[in-house]
Amino acid sequence: MKLTILKDYLTESIQHVSKAISSKTTIPILTGIKIDAATSGVTLTASDTDISIQSFTPNENEEIAIIELHQPGSVVLPAKFFMEIIRKLPSQKIEIEVRDHFQTIIRSGSSEIQIMGLDPEEYPLLPQLEESKMIQIPSDLLKTMIKQTSFAVSTNETTPILTGVLWHVQDGKLKFIACDRHRLASREISLDLDVAQTFHNIVISGRTLNELSKILPDQNALIDILVSDNQVLFKINSILFYSRILDGTYPDTSKLIPQSFQTELIVNTKELADAIDRAYLLSREDKTNIVKLIMLEDETIEISSSSSELGKVTEQLSLQSFKGERLRISFNSKYMLDALKVMDSDYIQIGFTGAMQPIIIKPEDQANILQLILPYRTTN
Amino acid sequence: MKLTILKDYLTESIQHVSKAISSKTTIPILTGIKIDAATSGVTLTASDTDISIQSFTPNENEEIAIIELHQPGSVVLPAKFFMEIIRKLPSQKIEIEVRDHFQTIIRSGSSEIQIMGLDPEEYPLLPQLEESKMIQIPSDLLKTMIKQTSFAVSTNETTPILTGVLWHVQDGKLKFIACDRHRLASREISLDLDVAQTFHNIVISGRTLNELSKILPDQNALIDILVSDNQVLFKINSILFYSRILDGTYPDTSKLIPQSFQTELIVNTKELADAIDRAYLLSREDKTNIVKLIMLEDETIEISSSSSELGKVTEQLSLQSFKGERLRISFNSKYMLDALKVMDSDYIQIGFTGAMQPIIIKPEDQANILQLILPYRTTN
Repeated sequence: MKLTILKDYLTESIQHVSKAISSKTTIPILTGIKIDAATSGVTLTASDTDISIQSFTPNENEEIAIIELHQPGSVVLPAKFFMEIIRKLPSQKIEIEVRDHFQTIIRSGSSEIQIMGLDPEEYPLLPQLEESKMIQIPSDLLKTMIKQTSFAVSTNETTPILTGVLWHVQDGKLKFIACDRHRLASREISLDLDVAQTFHNIVISGRTLNELSKILPDQNALIDILVSDNQVLFKINSILFYSRILDGTYPDTSKLIPQSFQTELIVNTKELADAIDRAYLLSREDKTNIVKLIMLEDETIEISSSSSELGKVTEQLSLQSFKGERLRISFNSKYMLDALKVMDSDYIQIGFTGAMQPIIIKPEDQANILQLILPYRTTN
Repeated sequence: MKLTILKDYLTESIQHVSKAISSKTTIPILTGIKIDAATSGVTLTASDTDISIQSFTPNENEEIAIIELHQPGSVVLPAKFFMEIIRKLPSQKIEIEVRDHFQTIIRSGSSEIQIMGLDPEEYPLLPQLEESKMIQIPSDLLKTMIKQTSFAVSTNETTPILTGVLWHVQDGKLKFIACDRHRLASREISLDLDVAQTFHNIVISGRTLNELSKILPDQNALIDILVSDNQVLFKINSILFYSRILDGTYPDTSKLIPQSFQTELIVNTKELADAIDRAYLLSREDKTNIVKLIMLEDETIEISSSSSELGKVTEQLSLQSFKGERLRISFNSKYMLDALKVMDSDYIQIGFTGAMQPIIIKPEDQANILQLILPYRTTN
């Protein structure tokens, strides 16, 4: 293999695939980035077995010559050092040459770097997606759906399925659901009906979706998503992002969600978030995160928290509307803040069915986002 | 104590004193910030015994009323929570009231915070500077002097005096010197002769100077520095910054510095730093940081490093001038980068007196900065 490539393009391509490099891998070859130089361009590949990312750089782009290929070939180079050294090379023009035993020479300006490369034949093959179904979601919408749900996945590896986000298809809708044992976040969109009929539920790791989100562009360009039995592939411009589908059956969460409420209130999202944030600061000091909500007379609520060591925070907040019975309820303020942070509506509706029943948070004006938080049992 | 104060002014004052709050303190009252409300204004104090900072906010400033005092008094409030909650209060107007047993009520908008305060009588007194000498240094120059030296202090607490920067006075000059057992950094300025005659050498902790640097404004306004036997006080606008002077005698480092060189070269600072940075990337992987410098024919040097695991980096660099014998020398590339980073000259002069003798780095055009690095003994 021998070629020259422009630094900025190589750096960008390395950045894309580096999201799949794990510092914890136990497979030596996966600490490397695979480089394939072919007549059409250069492909980089990185993988941590859960995620595999491939990024293609064409020989030329809008009349700029990016790559000059002298001899096609492949090599695997140590990812961390390769990334750092390429970024710091003195000249835009970078020459990469692979010699015997995958000894690789990189030249730029008056710098010469020799790297011990690894045999690309030892690099695992990328997943083959056979009989895959395809759906399409606009990039910015997919990004938003991930943001609104992935924070709620479980971090406890003893129930692996709950570390993922469920992609649930029903009645021509696609719903993302994430839940640990204390909260649930969901976001729904309409899907093309033909696709919805053939597409089945899948579960994708929350961590993987967060890495995907970093690569997704902030545009409404459609992302092709190919789903097979155990793999999903996202096509993002010249990047292929493969992810494993989590094994197992996702629990049925629909029964958790109350269908009617004993109490419903509508409140300004930012005012509530700010008030809870201040109460959270104190509750965090006691490591409990417990914050109490009390419904007072006159369409007002009181948010409070107290710490035996430090003191007490009390906040009064006017509601936009109030319906039903007055309640006192305690909850994890960190979970509530996470839920409020992803609400893109100025006012939210909160539904209660009792002091020990799930709290449901929705945007005031739409039904496509739903957040659920289990309350705390407290003594007073 | 009872007063109202504008949030932005209180936040700024808290930010200044917070630099003296240590999370490691074993003295409970020092986890707090002391507030003194007097008729002239409000003073905040924080201390970790090494550093004490006091920040004064006047009642009014350029026709803006900042503080409204209802009852003078004092209290000590837990620093971390106080800092965070004040920043997040909903309204500019903040009311602070201290009741019985130092129970403190903070009100802002519809938020009410009760904090258990501590008795200000238990707060340690600030150092008294008796018979102090005063020197003056422009703020930006003091900041630069700290930047150019403090990185070289020892981090090894077994020789406490080397964790400080020596302020050395001689022949009407003030010289900052920092050194661990492998390198030395110094920076010299002229001082008013009258002062220089009465001012004695002092040693101030490098960590303290770095905290001071964060408060120093980027202006050439003169900073008053009062020095007594065991304390130094920096007056920065409305802030008083006290520091302990380190006990002990700083070693005489003058003998370390060669007076004549066997080899002298002049090289572009940035080109050298970039080349060493690339070699450092590889040497770091082997955790040695060893980089080799070889003087070739034709006024060229070669910078290189190698790692048995990864490979080799080789850089060729043209010199602006070369004088003396050709050498091969190895050094800690991290130390060299630290030294080059604080050189404010486009070209530097490097002097050698042999492969095992100190390397001396100076700006090409001035003599007020000097950096010394001890070379490594290597086998080839």
